[in-house]
Amino acid sequence: MPEVFTLPALANFFAAGGSPVAVADAALARIAAWDDPALFLARVPPSTVRARAATLAAEGPQGRALFSVPFVLKDNIDAAGVPTTAACPDYAYTPAEDAPVVARLLAAGAVLLGKVNLDQFATGLNGTRSPHGAPRNPVLPDCVPGGSSSGSATAVAAGIAAFSLGTDTAGSGRVPAMLNNIVGLKPSLGLVPTQGVVPACRSLDVVSVFALTVADAGAVLEVMAGPASADRYSRAAPVGWRAVPAPQPAWQLAAPLPEQLVFDSPDDAALYDAALARAEALGGTVTRVDIAPFLAIARRLYDGAWVAERTAALRDLLTTKPEAIHPVTRGILEAGLDKRTIDAWDDFHAAAEARRLARALFARTDILLLPTAPGAPTLADLAAEPVAANSRLGTYTNFVNICDLSALAVPSGFRANGRPAGVTLVGPAFAEARLAGLGAALHAVAGVTLGATGAATPPPPVPPPLAPGELPLLAIGAHMAGLPLNPQVLRHGGRFLSAARTAPLYRFHDLGNRPGLVRVAEGGVAIAGEVWAFPAASVGPFLAEIPPPLGFGRVTLEDGSTPLGFLCEAAGVIGMPDISATGGWRAHIRGKERA
Amino acid sequence: MPEVFTLPALANFFAAGGSPVAVADAALARIAAWDDPALFLARVPPSTVRARAATLAAEGPQGRALFSVPFVLKDNIDAAGVPTTAACPDYAYTPAEDAPVVARLLAAGAVLLGKVNLDQFATGLNGTRSPHGAPRNPVLPDCVPGGSSSGSATAVAAGIAAFSLGTDTAGSGRVPAMLNNIVGLKPSLGLVPTQGVVPACRSLDVVSVFALTVADAGAVLEVMAGPASADRYSRAAPVGWRAVPAPQPAWQLAAPLPEQLVFDSPDDAALYDAALARAEALGGTVTRVDIAPFLAIARRLYDGAWVAERTAALRDLLTTKPEAIHPVTRGILEAGLDKRTIDAWDDFHAAAEARRLARALFARTDILLLPTAPGAPTLADLAAEPVAANSRLGTYTNFVNICDLSALAVPSGFRANGRPAGVTLVGPAFAEARLAGLGAALHAVAGVTLGATGAATPPPPVPPPLAPGELPLLAIGAHMAGLPLNPQVLRHGGRFLSAARTAPLYRFHDLGNRPGLVRVAEGGVAIAGEVWAFPAASVGPFLAEIPPPLGFGRVTLEDGSTPLGFLCEAAGVIGMPDISATGGWRAHIRGKERA
Repeated sequence: MPEVFTLPALANFFAAGGSPVAVADAALARIAAWDDPALFLARVPPSTVRARAATLAAEGPQGRALFSVPFVLKDNIDAAGVPTTAACPDYAYTPAEDAPVVARLLAAGAVLLGKVNLDQFATGLNGTRSPHGAPRNPVLPDCVPGGSSSGSATAVAAGIAAFSLGTDTAGSGRVPAMLNNIVGLKPSLGLVPTQGVVPACRSLDVVSVFALTVADAGAVLEVMAGPASADRYSRAAPVGWRAVPAPQPAWQLAAPLPEQLVFDSPDDAALYDAALARAEALGGTVTRVDIAPFLAIARRLYDGAWVAERTAALRDLLTTKPEAIHPVTRGILEAGLDKRTIDAWDDFHAAAEARRLARALFARTDILLLPTAPGAPTLADLAAEPVAANSRLGTYTNFVNICDLSALAVPSGFRANGRPAGVTLVGPAFAEARLAGLGAALHAVAGVTLGATGAATPPPPVPPPLAPGELPLLAIGAHMAGLPLNPQVLRHGGRFLSAARTAPLYRFHDLGNRPGLVRVAEGGVAIAGEVWAFPAASVGPFLAEIPPPLGFGRVTLEDGSTPLGFLCEAAGVIGMPDISATGGWRAHIRGKERA
Repeated sequence: MPEVFTLPALANFFAAGGSPVAVADAALARIAAWDDPALFLARVPPSTVRARAATLAAEGPQGRALFSVPFVLKDNIDAAGVPTTAACPDYAYTPAEDAPVVARLLAAGAVLLGKVNLDQFATGLNGTRSPHGAPRNPVLPDCVPGGSSSGSATAVAAGIAAFSLGTDTAGSGRVPAMLNNIVGLKPSLGLVPTQGVVPACRSLDVVSVFALTVADAGAVLEVMAGPASADRYSRAAPVGWRAVPAPQPAWQLAAPLPEQLVFDSPDDAALYDAALARAEALGGTVTRVDIAPFLAIARRLYDGAWVAERTAALRDLLTTKPEAIHPVTRGILEAGLDKRTIDAWDDFHAAAEARRLARALFARTDILLLPTAPGAPTLADLAAEPVAANSRLGTYTNFVNICDLSALAVPSGFRANGRPAGVTLVGPAFAEARLAGLGAALHAVAGVTLGATGAATPPPPVPPPLAPGELPLLAIGAHMAGLPLNPQVLRHGGRFLSAARTAPLYRFHDLGNRPGLVRVAEGGVAIAGEVWAFPAASVGPFLAEIPPPLGFGRVTLEDGSTPLGFLCEAAGVIGMPDISATGGWRAHIRGKERA
């Protein structure tokens, strides 16, 4: 039985003959041992969980990405036959159908354990705004669990669920990740259907993922992503989109101007500086940027048009049974009743301007690296200042959805008093793989363990295999890593996959500053090269820059695969030196340098 | 001197030695002869127009797309140093800078004649809502000119300006085109900067083009298009976007269910049916679709959140000097003052749903073909019912911007009583070239002359040359037009450009169902093929479907150009029949069929 429920640990367990029923039993035992009455709002009956696991055991994995992986849902997301309450018992309804995102997880083999607590109607960032109480923070019990996805985060940090779904409008998928020392992945707007999700700000809501590792969060998101035909806010991702970590050799990073950073303690400031330093050590170049326009648009999220969007979604309950709503939440919602549309347009035009500035920022920056929150407040802090302490938690998160950005929260260490800290990587829409690439590397060197499990963080990621929408292309000359034409490859989005050798079917010629590979009927040799992954859309523009006699066609490798590669017209090598004996361009140029 | 100011006629005139000053003088003479005191709100002084033309004459064309082409601006678009009034004298300001779109036209050589009348604050579709009176309709003087871009349309129809700029939020770039028997091109949201334009509904406003021909409107739009860095509503067009007509051999067309069509007269209905029949004769397949969701969202444009957007833009004037505003317009704006944001969100969520339905429609449809308006009302009709008759004009136009669609209005004939009619082609965002392709073909066979000039409509378009973002590729086998693999070419967005022949440098082999072209050092012949334009992003995915020994590289044509083309590894033709003597694949397969 894996000590910690990560996807690789579970997959290894099953591959070695472990039983899905055993994992289900272990998850149920962890729920019992954790014994938090404020965690679950609805359990899937243990007998049903075991029966589901038994069915999966009988079926076998069948290639399913989440085979027998236990998870929990924030109770504002529909699961067929289980009440959806949004932590408001008077709001409850029992959906007949799974939300599309839940249906996708179940189809991928995941095992639902139940639905968990949240700040009522997903309004809040601290986790105490629920009539059911606050879920216990597994890292430090006097810290708030964070919200609104409180139960989703604590269930993962406590080691009960391998992953969970939250929702994120203003930071509810990121702040609880920080407070529980886990990973929170907030996808791009529209990437995951929000059909079957109780709306907060419907135009800004996204379904988010909590997991112990960045790679796990990305793998789960890949199962969840894609338009649902009936979902009006779905958007198609670009061809080739992925969420698994995409390492880069270098990163252009942005960080706020020092005077724009607020922290709860010097420890929090030092932890952020340390994370920046680690990002630089990983190949990042940090530029300080003015984030004032983003902080300004964030203030409109709770003062302006979007609070009325929350109100509009709950107007019936608010007018017919206001006492059903948590007093703090009710106060927020009531503020939306009287707002005027002519003022809302000021907010929308300001939001359009903020999105323009974000586009300009990310035209020159890979990732904006922020503290996830100024610090980790205690339950007592929240009780003392239920609105102000909550607002402070959203300092670095509120603007992200309004600006149409993607974000990933990862742990970054602990204050001396044991409170957790984190950084959030922000990128443009659909940059999840890029965020995951740096995020996983930062997590691996943060000196933290996973959630409250005590397990070590996994090693930095290795390049993912070829993705849908990518084509493999064998480089054999100056386009290889570190050689003069490699920047051309990177500019077209090329991504190193592996060193490789052709089948012994070719002759290799020196055309001056580049080689020519020609297939021959007999007398061929194997030539060394590198396989790079290219976005399919980039192959044509890359090819258009390649002068004759070279072109692209299929090359046969020694493993029998046939990626695209550089071919040379046979007429183009007539009279050019045959350098087949060198075995490849690197050896050839080393030889020329020695000569 | 060209009788009619179309771009080709003007270009031919200048190419034959004609003087820009002569064209400027002719335009000024036409203004004098037309003698409509309600047309211009500000003239560029004739001496300034002549001086500008003299400067252009001295410089020569220098490749400028709009060299010495006279145009007018709707007076809600900034031209440096000329008052912008939006037809409200109390609103007037004098901008120091040209709107970016105006700067682009001037940089392309266009000659501004002045700024013209409009329905005040671009609120209206009929052209009578101006304190300066209604511009005279050149086609039929008792018809309204249409609005809000009234003067922009009449100036083109009267032959004064070769083109004009309007704005279009609810149909102001399309309805006046119909009423003046000219072309109105309403670009996609964000394609043309709206910086320096008086806002109506800033989130929905676009700058539109009026011209005598579809090709001219497209050529002008290509000059105007592209993000302005400071414009928050700018969007980048897809790579390869164009606006010149892109012919297609066949079109999937949609038309409303018959019971959803409303017309002012049986004549109007018959004219629409005739246009549909002509579209079918041009290769269109018409499917009837339910447009009820689009008609429903249109009603919200003047009842819901967007009226408050108009109000928000003018709130200062409306509260401090309401009497400065046209009474009908003031009534509309006042209705926006008290609208509540919680109700606005109903409109926005409904708009998101309408956009989803539009995406679904255009996933299976090239173009939605609509009447431009139910009919052409008279000045007396509008005086009798200033709001109702105006609303009726927007029946088929109001939903288009809310649904993020592009549109093109073209003339379709005349009622027996001489009133003009038109059809509007609607497509998804950035489909301007597609709309122009069918629109130009429909215009050519509509049996109309250009505006009120009496000049004949131009012949159907020929394929445009290679566009930015496209790559040329020589097809030499079954991928050529009409052959078995041509659908693969079309699926990847290929577009026929021309027949072509290689330079005599190749041998040609029969590899079974496809040919192999191999460059040789001596003994080469010329081979016939076809050059197709491909979106650069499609070349890689297309190449990925081509099995070895074929690939893509540079092919040398007899004209010396070197498009991409199908190359064959020399080793792949060993033992395969040399069919170079046939001169090409079509001749080869004809010979095989005869055999």
